[in-house]
Amino acid sequence: MKVNRYEQVQSVPVEMEGASHCRVRWLIGREDGAPNFAMRQFEVAPGGFTPKHHHPYEHEVFVIEGSGAVLEGEREHPLQAGDVVYVAPDEVHQFRNTGTAPLKFLCLVPHTAAAQAPQTPPECDG
Amino acid sequence: MKVNRYEQVQSVPVEMEGASHCRVRWLIGREDGAPNFAMRQFEVAPGGFTPKHHHPYEHEVFVIEGSGAVLEGEREHPLQAGDVVYVAPDEVHQFRNTGTAPLKFLCLVPHTAAAQAPQTPPECDG
Repeated sequence: MKVNRYEQVQSVPVEMEGASHCRVRWLIGREDGAPNFAMRQFEVAPGGFTPKHHHPYEHEVFVIEGSGAVLEGEREHPLQAGDVVYVAPDEVHQFRNTGTAPLKFLCLVPHTAAAQAPQTPPECDG
Repeated sequence: MKVNRYEQVQSVPVEMEGASHCRVRWLIGREDGAPNFAMRQFEVAPGGFTPKHHHPYEHEVFVIEGSGAVLEGEREHPLQAGDVVYVAPDEVHQFRNTGTAPLKFLCLVPHTAAAQAPQTPPECDG
């Protein structure tokens, strides 16, 4: 068993192309012995966003703090603390902070994600 | 994509033997098309607890609200909002509400859990 506070886990910048002002903490992962999926916590600063992309694996998301939006292709869904988002494999998506405080959310992915690179949709290229 | 608030998902009593004053919401599961794991939200009333048991699958837990404790065998770890718990497969564990407000947490499990019944440790039998 491992018990700790999420803020005690080191956060690192999200270096992925298309990300702006995002940091991530890997709260539970393979190195803890977790056999199937990883729990990550993202923090997006006001005005920041995650990449607009898609990939062959799912996201299971829970918003902890702040406000923002998730894009489902071109459609925007507002987000606040307590919202749950399921992003199916291959759906184009992007998380944006539209508020004035950090947007914090959990985003869980299967371990198979490590071997499946995200892709940017054509309209975002160049 | 599915976006909703966790409180809008119906909660049902946890009927498992050894549970007291627990309810659960299945926030993301197989019926949403999630291929690998499920996001559930538990709510334990003051004085309530989940079963003290073990099973061959893991838990990935994030505490949303309230205060309580998680038992790791006989060892007790205090819990509050923002705490993260990884329960490895086959570890004896129990979540307890030791506060005066509901203890709310997310608990994610692989879909394989459905085929693997939890077991009560010998000292809890009879």
